[in-house]
This record gives sequence, structure tokens and C-alpha cells, in this order.
Amino acid sequence: MTRSKMPDRKKVATANLDSMHRVFTVPEEPSSALARIDQHISENLTGFLQDHIVAVEKDLQEVEQVFSESAIPENPVFVSEQTEFLLDQLVAHSVHTASPSFIGHMTSALPYFMVSLSKIMIALNQNLVKTETSKAFTPLERQVLGMLHRLVYQQDDRFYAKWMHNSNGALGSMCSGGTIANITALWVARNRSLPAEGAFKGVHQSGLHRALKHHGYDDVTVLVSKRGHYSLSKAADLLGIGRDSIKAIPTDNDNRIRVDALEKACEDARHNNTLIMAIVGIAGTTETGNVDPLEQVANIAERYGAYFHVDAAWGGPTLFSHKHRNLLKGIERADSVTIDAHKQLYVPMGTGLVVFKDPEVANAIEHHAQYIIRKGSRDLGSKTLEGSRPGMAMLIHSGLKIIGRSGYEMLIDLGIEKARKFAAMIDAEQDFELISRPELNILTYRYAPRVVQDALPLMAEPERKEANRLLSRLTKSIQKAQRNRGKAFVSRTRLNPYLHHGQDCIVFRVVLANPLTTEEILRDILEEQKKIALEDFLDEYHQSLYALLPEAPKSAVN
Amino acid sequence: MTRSKMPDRKKVATANLDSMHRVFTVPEEPSSALARIDQHISENLTGFLQDHIVAVEKDLQEVEQVFSESAIPENPVFVSEQTEFLLDQLVAHSVHTASPSFIGHMTSALPYFMVSLSKIMIALNQNLVKTETSKAFTPLERQVLGMLHRLVYQQDDRFYAKWMHNSNGALGSMCSGGTIANITALWVARNRSLPAEGAFKGVHQSGLHRALKHHGYDDVTVLVSKRGHYSLSKAADLLGIGRDSIKAIPTDNDNRIRVDALEKACEDARHNNTLIMAIVGIAGTTETGNVDPLEQVANIAERYGAYFHVDAAWGGPTLFSHKHRNLLKGIERADSVTIDAHKQLYVPMGTGLVVFKDPEVANAIEHHAQYIIRKGSRDLGSKTLEGSRPGMAMLIHSGLKIIGRSGYEMLIDLGIEKARKFAAMIDAEQDFELISRPELNILTYRYAPRVVQDALPLMAEPERKEANRLLSRLTKSIQKAQRNRGKAFVSRTRLNPYLHHGQDCIVFRVVLANPLTTEEILRDILEEQKKIALEDFLDEYHQSLYALLPEAPKSAVN
Repeated sequence: MTRSKMPDRKKVATANLDSMHRVFTVPEEPSSALARIDQHISENLTGFLQDHIVAVEKDLQEVEQVFSESAIPENPVFVSEQTEFLLDQLVAHSVHTASPSFIGHMTSALPYFMVSLSKIMIALNQNLVKTETSKAFTPLERQVLGMLHRLVYQQDDRFYAKWMHNSNGALGSMCSGGTIANITALWVARNRSLPAEGAFKGVHQSGLHRALKHHGYDDVTVLVSKRGHYSLSKAADLLGIGRDSIKAIPTDNDNRIRVDALEKACEDARHNNTLIMAIVGIAGTTETGNVDPLEQVANIAERYGAYFHVDAAWGGPTLFSHKHRNLLKGIERADSVTIDAHKQLYVPMGTGLVVFKDPEVANAIEHHAQYIIRKGSRDLGSKTLEGSRPGMAMLIHSGLKIIGRSGYEMLIDLGIEKARKFAAMIDAEQDFELISRPELNILTYRYAPRVVQDALPLMAEPERKEANRLLSRLTKSIQKAQRNRGKAFVSRTRLNPYLHHGQDCIVFRVVLANPLTTEEILRDILEEQKKIALEDFLDEYHQSLYALLPEAPKSAVN
Repeated sequence: MTRSKMPDRKKVATANLDSMHRVFTVPEEPSSALARIDQHISENLTGFLQDHIVAVEKDLQEVEQVFSESAIPENPVFVSEQTEFLLDQLVAHSVHTASPSFIGHMTSALPYFMVSLSKIMIALNQNLVKTETSKAFTPLERQVLGMLHRLVYQQDDRFYAKWMHNSNGALGSMCSGGTIANITALWVARNRSLPAEGAFKGVHQSGLHRALKHHGYDDVTVLVSKRGHYSLSKAADLLGIGRDSIKAIPTDNDNRIRVDALEKACEDARHNNTLIMAIVGIAGTTETGNVDPLEQVANIAERYGAYFHVDAAWGGPTLFSHKHRNLLKGIERADSVTIDAHKQLYVPMGTGLVVFKDPEVANAIEHHAQYIIRKGSRDLGSKTLEGSRPGMAMLIHSGLKIIGRSGYEMLIDLGIEKARKFAAMIDAEQDFELISRPELNILTYRYAPRVVQDALPLMAEPERKEANRLLSRLTKSIQKAQRNRGKAFVSRTRLNPYLHHGQDCIVFRVVLANPLTTEEILRDILEEQKKIALEDFLDEYHQSLYALLPEAPKSAVN
């Protein structure tokens, strides 16, 4: 990509009172220097975003050289100079997460209007911790939480009229992302299950060691399928219950929690005098996009009196789709639900939230301060993990209005349909193997020459293990080579699929959330992978692999 | 403020495949509809920001009416329609945090270039959790952490060459704000002080209840002055040690931690077999802007082998000033230091960070996942509390370059100087009383008629208490009235000043961080408060107050 240059300025910037006043003064004229820079940035960003290359090939170490000075510059540089630097050195070596051939992670394209409207948020620089620094943004945030609460829990108008702007409750908590949302939910769960009682002041006040003793538990556990997001064990560490307290429940053939195993774990906990702090269901596992049987999980949570949280960071917006919302049946019974707005609500990075079924449940984590978030105020800062927060709710609000329920439905339906088509393409390929069939818009597959696929079930355990190891090396090498070529990006992960007797397999992982990703692009991505697989640098792996086959297969290949 | 309107569009938006593709497509032409909206937003924001009114008077309940619909709209609206809505209903009723007469909170004006450069961040939508979704942004973030580490710890070039881009360490952790930064620091402190040992797997793995038992402690405590930020007790709740574990150490006449009391608390902890998990020093208390004697606090932390954290969320940038950096002497001995970038680095809301003296200390909170932040990678996502994160580091980088060390120094020096001048103005006023003299750029004062000020020391305890209560009502009423008039905003808080024998006092709180705030503006703010104090609606409080005076003072007034 070539880009236009700003005209050179020969003056040298200096820090003086005038220049400091100037940087804080809003430009009067649309023809001002800053307005020209603004225009220049827009043009170059448009160029970058229209470019459908995923990443310019440049070694990370080389990029690091550019960002290696540790001293803070003594004298100011002009805005134009820093702009040039950012466009040349940062933008040019960024990842085109918006490219339709970037289908590897959950960070996708943004509707372009988000870029324009974000300017309002940045320029106003409101702080949502407190109405005194946000005013209209606080009611707007409460409305957004109400709308998403309604999407999940479908209460009636009276319920929302009562609670939406009620300082005694919160329909949810805004966060910078799904991790903080999950931590917030488990924080609520912990404080709610080890409350104050008589002279005991509660876990929030007296700590976990005293709380377990007072409530008479030997231990504490959180039950979630082994496909649970890593933020849950981060939460367990943070909350002081320890990572080992997360009990990873086995999954069925389709990466969904095994309800019998969950029930068994509940029985074990009860038997061992262990508090079941929470049961977490997943609506869209991060790696395979599967949905736990939430209705059945809800039944078990109810039976054991456990707090029920659903991590719908990815899959929550499936509720927009009349066709697919049934997949999440039972979610309305959860005590709390995480939804990431910077995923399938298509809002810029840094926006997640958790909604609470009971608007008073978050009182378990309430806190106040004299100069801010005083009691009785409508500020949502008293029930958020974070303190000062930007007005990102404005962008969720804009998405809900400009895309609308029917627009989000279309995006969801398109993604799922496209994932099914891509799965069919992989099924039709000789040398690729679908590892997880898409339930939502995520799937995994790997490279595996047909002869090897056919031979695997016949192999003895040690050979099969070695074959899977080699197939993993191949898939990983193809993924890296494709990434480095820069035309497309598919991610990779490590799974232990039922299909392969739980053996360790590295797989390609595909996330289909960009509506501009066409079937043709998907076909091209597969074609490129096929070509890479045939290249010389992978010969050695192929030879080792074929040597494992029961009968001389070399003739069958090429 | 009147604003221009977008031309009406009569068409109705519908969600169809075309429209969904369109919202995700980057506009080709600068004359496109979106480009016109962009221009329209810029013009209106300029109008808003140039307007030096703090807030348009409108009742919060009235504003809530506008944001009360809980159903997600079925059909999309045009971007232009939502833009009009936001400008009319949200922008018009927002708080002008950028106004030079908004001196009440730590949310201040932004240098205008931040608005232009933010567009780069939003449009690229990188995710800093992982180099695969950030590339050049990761080295840039590591550089920014290195620069701020150097500002605090002043290590040599060799140190930064070794650590800046080293995947085995982290010079800091980027966060959405100071609260998360403080929580991250205390999380590190907890995990580091209750580590794995022999068969014991550490607090992070096995939980607090087992950790205390294994390491042989009966309890755990965090020591911080009673002026500590509320995020610290939030952290104590979250981390499972309980809010009561925060031991609030008394302060001296100037709101600084009393070192003798801190030492006594350490002795008590040792005597009670209590782990001192961390000692927290404050560099810029939130309410009064005072700085603890960090050198002496460091000595005590060293003597008791405790983790030493400094909360410099507000005061950290004082280190830019050659004249004032000495106030923070000893900060370089802290294990970790919180700095809020959205405060005195003048970066948009949602940016804080913590730097670590020892780049390996954050390994205590390290975590990995297969599809992301794999071991050995340079991603900073393995040592952050948050998961997916935006590229805000880009804006800190731009501030450091465009304002420069010398520019930030000027901003710091200006603010402190202005606070001293404002304090002198208050001292010269008959009917106002300075409550905390500014050490940095924050001060507190209250309304107190001279006769009452003179009589207070002579009053008996119950009368003095009642007088202070009435003075608090007066100060609070004046603050609210001034806020509602919309020309200026000063915040209020509740202190127990030494000056008034620890009695409860509501005070005005002033934060002077906007370089456009002139002495004239400060004088006007005082004048307005004086006028409000004389208004009829406050007569009753005055009468009750004067009735408490030992001698008939009514003649002395008016």
C-alpha cells in the first residue's frame, strides 16, 4: 500500500505555554492544521481498510526495533510528525482484522459507522463511574443494559419500567470485556453464597478463610465444562478460591458438557462438604462454538441450589435469530449472562457486559465512596469491577438501532449458514478432516491426507499417537505459512477430539463473523492451504507420516 | 447551543443483505453519506466543546424518559437519524468535562489531537491480547510500558534493551484504568507472598484458605492510609482477603500516612501472626492530592519484608517535573506503581497501567490458553487481568511524543502553581476556609462565615458539632446550586480534618488539571459561590448557625 504524505514542516516544536494551550484548544476553523491531519488520517485509513491483505510480512523483531527507545522524548514533536510515524510504522504493520479473509479470531470487521460515532465518545470523554461526569450517558447505559437484559430474560414492560433507572438495582454491569464480565459474575456468585449471617460479616468483609469456616464448608468449587474460557480460571485465581477449584467437566462428542458428569460432580461436592459456588454453562465455546444443554444445566443448578452463570460472550447474540435462538434455550434461567459487545454486537474493542436476572443480586458487590458513587445515586459505578469507564454503551446503543434486531438476526443467520457451507467444502476435500462440525459460526478442521485418515482407525495406539503428532506438525506449519503469506488468516488451537480418542490434535480454527467473507474467499483459503501442504518444506513430515502406514501407501500418494 | 441539522431523509431503512454489506463496507468516496455525517459530527462536537457551559440544566428524570424503551428496535434506522438523536439527546445533555470551569473531578480536557488520533485506534480495532490480532501494537505497548517504567525506576539502557521486548517478563500491565491497575498489583502481591512450596501449589492454584494454613498465617492484611482509594477495598473483597483486611492507618495534619502508626500496625501484624500482604503508599490522594512520605514507607516495607505498592494513579506524572518530582522520592523503591493515563497523561477515558520494578514479578499471575497467548509468545495478554483489550497504548505513545517530557512538566507545574494561587484567594476570603492546602494540584475548602470561623474554637463540643453539621449543609447546598446553574462545577466530599478535631465536614474539592483554567475563572467560581451563599434559600441554615454563636453575632453579619 502506498500512501500520501503530509507536507513537510520545517519548524521545530517546543513546549511553551502557548503550545500547551494550543493542544487543548478546539480548532475553530475546518481548514486548521488539525482538520487537515484529520482528513489525511481518514484517507489513509480508508486505504488500509480497503486493502484486503491480512498482514504485511515483516518480522516481529524488526518491528520491535522501531519501538525500542525507552527514554521519553524531551521535546514535543508536531502532531503531523507523529501522525506520519503512526501511519508508516504502526498502521502499516497492523493486522487487518477487518479483512474478509481474516477468519481466525473473534476480532472481526466493524460497521464503518462505528468509526464516525466513536468520535462523539472520545471527544466528550465522559466518565461513567458517576453521573456528575456523565449525565445523559448514565441513563443511556442503563437503557442498553435493560435492552440486553430483555433480549435474554424477556421480562415485561412493567419490570423494566420499575428497574431500568432504579438506584436500588442494576440490570447488568458494563465492563471492558468478557473476562471482566465473567469475573464480575463469579464475584457476585461467591459473595452471594458466603453471605453475612449473625455476627459473621460475609466473605466480602471477612475473607474466604473465615467465610468457609463460618458456613461450615471444607472447600469450594466452580463447575464448568473443560471447554470453559480461560478467564474462568483467571477468575478463580483472582477470587482467592484457586485455579484447582475449577472442576473441568468432560464433554460429549460435540464439545457440550456431559450432564451426567456434571451431576456426578455435584454429588461429589455435596459428599465432600464442598460449596458449589457456581455452575457455568457455555453458549458458544471459544474454540469450537458449541452450546451446552442449558436447560438441563439449569435443572441441575436448581436441584443443588447453585448460582447459575452462562458465558455467552460469543453466542449471546444468537438470541437475535428466530431460527437459532432455541439453541440457547434455558439461558433465561441463568442468574447472570456474559455478552461481549466487541464480538457479535460489532462494537469496537473494549466492551463487554454481564446481565443479572435479579436486579438486586449485584448488591453483593456494592461499594461506595464519599466523593463519588454516593449511596442512593443512580451511578452504575457502585456495581462495576472497574472504576472510571468510557461511554462505550453509546456504541452498543447505536449498533442496536442502526443494525436493529432484524439486522443482527441476518448477521447471525449468515454466519451459521456460511459455517455449514464451509464444513461441507471441507467434507468434500480428500485431504482435510472436519474436527468440529459448526453449531454456531465456528468450526475446526485439520490437514490429514486421505490415506492417513483411512489408516488411522487401523493403527495401533503408539503409531496412531505418532501419526496425530505429525498431522499436528503439518497443520501448524500450514497455518503459520499461510499467516506469513499475508493473504488470509485462520487461527489454530489444540483439541483432544472424541473422534481421535482424546488424543492431542492441533487444528485450524475458523470464526465466520464478517458478512463480507464470501464462499469464494473460503474456497481460496482452502486452496492456498492445499498448495502449501504440497510444498517441499513439508516433505519430511509427510515421509515420516507415510512410514507409519500399515501398507506401502507411497504409491497411493502424488 | 443551537446546532445544524442533517437534511431529512424520507426513505425507511430495512435490514437486507445489501444494507448489511453496506454498513461493513468502507466508503470509497469522501463525498459519501457517511463522510457527510462525519463532517456533521465534527462541526457539532466543535460547537459543544467550544461552549464553556458545564452542563445544560435538565432534570435527570427527564433525561431518563428519553432512554426508557427496553425493547430492541426491530428495524434499523439510518446512521443520520441515530446521529441526530445522539447530538440532540446525548451530547446536549452531557457534562462538559473539557470546560475550563469544570474543576471538580479528575476527568479533564483532552488535547484535541487525541480525538483525531483515536480514529486510527478505533478503525484498526486491534486486540492487544495476542500479537496475531495486534502485531505492531504489541511492541508499541511494550515500549510505552518501558518508557513509564523508566520514568519511575530510571534503569539504564541495558536494562531496557534486555527486558522491553522479552517474552519472559513484563515491565508493566496495561489496564482499562487505575482500579484494575491497583487490583493487578495486589493480585501479584498476594500470589507472591503465598507461593508454591514443596507439595503446596500456591495460593493461585489452591486458594487462600489452604495457602494461609500451609504458610502458617492466621490472617492477612494490607496497610494503607485512611485516605486510600476505594479501589483498594474493592480489591480486598475481590481477592478473597475481605474488606476488613485493609487496615486504614491514621494520617497526619496533611493527610499523609503517619509512619509511627504504620510501624505500629506492622508490629501488631507480626505479633498476631498476620501476613502483611502489601503496604500501599499514595502519591496523590484522591480527595486532597497529598503524597505519603514514600521513602519512609519504603524503609518500613523493607524492614518487614512486605510487598510495596504505590498508588500514583493521580500523582505519577509529577515525576515529569524537575521542580516537583522530589515530592515522590522513594517511589523508585516500590515493587509496583499504578499510573492512570486518562488522568494526568491526558489520554481518553479507559486507560491505566501498573509498572513492575522486577520484570519477572508478574509471572505470579501468568496464564495461558491454547488458541491464544501461548507460552513463549511476546503477547502481553498472559499478564493482564483483562482479556481482549484495545490499543490505547497508541494514545499514550502519542501524548508522550506530542506533549513531550517538557510539555508534561509544564502542565504539572502550572497545575500546582494555580492550586497555590487559588488557595491564596480562599485564604483572603472572609467567609471561606481552606481545609487542605494543596501539595499537588488538588485542594479542599468550605464555606464558613468569618464569625463562625472565629467562634468555632471557643464553642463547646456539642455546639461545635452542630455548627459543623450546619456548615456542611451550607457547603453542600452551594455546591449543588452551582452545579445546577451550569456555569461551573466543583465537586464535594466528606473529610474529617485535623483542623476540626476530626469532626465530619463536607467540603468543596477542586482539581486543577486543565491548562485553560485561568485565575479569572477561579475568581468567578468563588464569586458565584459567595453570591449563592447570600441567597434566601440558605437563610434558615444561617439563622440556625448564628443561634449557636456564644455572643449575639447577628449585628456582625450583613
